[in-house]
Amino acid sequence: MEFIINHETFNQAISEVSKAVSSKTPFPILTGIKIIADTNQLTVIGSNSDIIIEKIIPLEYDGVKVLEVLNRGSVVISAKYLSEIAKKLPNDIHIKGNEKQIITIQSDDIVTTLHGFNSEEYPMLPKMVETPSTRMAIHDLIELIKQTVFATSKNETRPVLTGVHMSFQENKLTCAATNSHRLALSEITIESNVNGSVIIPSSALHELLKLMNPNQGEIEIYISTSYIVFKSSSMTLFSRLIEGNYPNVVGLIPHESETAITMNTKQLLKGIDRACLFASDWKNNNVMLEMKDASKLKISSNSTEIGRIEEYQPILSSVGCNELSISLDGNFLMDALKVIKEEEVKISFGGSMRPVLIEPVNNSSQLQLISPVRTY
Amino acid sequence: MEFIINHETFNQAISEVSKAVSSKTPFPILTGIKIIADTNQLTVIGSNSDIIIEKIIPLEYDGVKVLEVLNRGSVVISAKYLSEIAKKLPNDIHIKGNEKQIITIQSDDIVTTLHGFNSEEYPMLPKMVETPSTRMAIHDLIELIKQTVFATSKNETRPVLTGVHMSFQENKLTCAATNSHRLALSEITIESNVNGSVIIPSSALHELLKLMNPNQGEIEIYISTSYIVFKSSSMTLFSRLIEGNYPNVVGLIPHESETAITMNTKQLLKGIDRACLFASDWKNNNVMLEMKDASKLKISSNSTEIGRIEEYQPILSSVGCNELSISLDGNFLMDALKVIKEEEVKISFGGSMRPVLIEPVNNSSQLQLISPVRTY
Repeated sequence: MEFIINHETFNQAISEVSKAVSSKTPFPILTGIKIIADTNQLTVIGSNSDIIIEKIIPLEYDGVKVLEVLNRGSVVISAKYLSEIAKKLPNDIHIKGNEKQIITIQSDDIVTTLHGFNSEEYPMLPKMVETPSTRMAIHDLIELIKQTVFATSKNETRPVLTGVHMSFQENKLTCAATNSHRLALSEITIESNVNGSVIIPSSALHELLKLMNPNQGEIEIYISTSYIVFKSSSMTLFSRLIEGNYPNVVGLIPHESETAITMNTKQLLKGIDRACLFASDWKNNNVMLEMKDASKLKISSNSTEIGRIEEYQPILSSVGCNELSISLDGNFLMDALKVIKEEEVKISFGGSMRPVLIEPVNNSSQLQLISPVRTY
Repeated sequence: MEFIINHETFNQAISEVSKAVSSKTPFPILTGIKIIADTNQLTVIGSNSDIIIEKIIPLEYDGVKVLEVLNRGSVVISAKYLSEIAKKLPNDIHIKGNEKQIITIQSDDIVTTLHGFNSEEYPMLPKMVETPSTRMAIHDLIELIKQTVFATSKNETRPVLTGVHMSFQENKLTCAATNSHRLALSEITIESNVNGSVIIPSSALHELLKLMNPNQGEIEIYISTSYIVFKSSSMTLFSRLIEGNYPNVVGLIPHESETAITMNTKQLLKGIDRACLFASDWKNNNVMLEMKDASKLKISSNSTEIGRIEEYQPILSSVGCNELSISLDGNFLMDALKVIKEEEVKISFGGSMRPVLIEPVNNSSQLQLISPVRTY
């Protein structure tokens, strides 16, 4: 195997796939990156027990030559050293592997020799033929994931909650995530012939977010019983699925409220952020929201030893009862407000012990639910 | 005590002095920042057992009003919460303290109340009257510190080596730092009437580097038996001194060499950086330098299990023996080359077991010494 490649292109690809590679794997070969040189492209693969990332490098990018393959073949090289050296080479990189798995990497007159692995031993990737698939705009997928993934549970006691639940119905994709104290739900209409639902590890989705380029048009999603595949023109990410039954979160969404108010999203976020001043001293970082009339919302928190902080923010409009007092986890509130793009947000309260519903104004495709904190 | 201050000015000052404040101190009051409001200025003080940082905020900066003092007085406020809140306030900050040490911090209609400490309990700062002092350009002091502080020892077994040795002779300031494997020495001519030498903790000098603004003209240095003070127009840093006798490092500098070569500084640095590829697998990160003739220097390193890297760089000029083979700690070499601004560097070798002397070409005020690594 032998090829010459533009060093920036190579460095970029290696650093992206090496994100998937863990040095902690029991299989030495999985600490490596697999490089496959074909006549018309280079394929670079990195993986761990949860995900596989595959990047395709064509011979040229919009007319500019970046790759020349002199001999087809494949090698597996330590991800750690390959990414280190790729960063530091000044010019086009000439890589050559022999049958003894000795790989020479040359750039100008800098010569590196690394012992590779036998690429035959690298596990096969799942086949995607016959797997039902659907297409959507990359930009939309990015939004859906960002609006939900933060709400997954960090706690492994209920594995299904550590993932995002993606359910494909006829022409609709719904994403849900919850840690049982808060829920994020977001949906979008897509043209899909896939039906069914899967639970995807949040770690895989965080990697996917880093890899997807919103300007790269569409992404194809393949679903099988044991894995899901996201395939764009430049990369493919395979992720394992989390097994188990996801709770029926839609049933949790309240349909009536005692009080509903609209607030300025950014301003409210800043206010909550300030009220979290004493967060570090609270096991659950309480923020009090109070309303005495329809004009102002009081945001406050206090810590007997240290002090208190409070501020008032104008209520843009309100419906229902004008008196309210509830205490919520400030970080959950901030997470929820951060993913709302709309300028105004609607907050519906069902009473001091009922979950609070947060929705962007004029956008019914996204909602968040946060359970109050008991303060006695 | 009561004053109104521009929030950016205040935030800046608080974040600078809070760098000195440690939450680990046994004295609760030292977890706080002392604020002294005078009719014509605000003084902000943060400290720990090693250093004290004092910032002065005038009523205006080049004609722009930033401070209005309504009532003179002083308070001590928790550094942690004060810096948090100062960051997050949107507008001018109105701070008021009462005799019960209750401090209210208001910006727009955001009101924070914090319990302060009794400012009478805050330790007095050392007096600088009668202390001998000298002046120098801030820019020069920054250079001197950068050229030496990195070479201090991280190991507490010989406390004197954890500091930088500053020796003031008539009209000359010399800084030295060593960890007994490498030495950095740098000197400058200054107009000073101070004589004597001190050892300053590297931590204090790192803080000083962050605080000094090279465009702020001159800095005054006061030296007493137990502390040193750096005073510029906008800030004062007090540092404790390290007691003990500093080794006579000047005696270590070799005066003749077997081989002396000049190389391009930046190119050599990059080459050493690449050769450190296998650094993580070496207890002392060896890099081999080899010369077979006067034209090229071979830079290489290798790890039997992983592989090897080598490159050749042109030697710009050489004096003495043309054969050479020595192995050095790559990180020490990089540290040394990083602080050399000059385009070309002169490297003098006294044999494979003798320390290597590194100096910028045409600049005798700065030198570095690195002991070779035994590779058998």
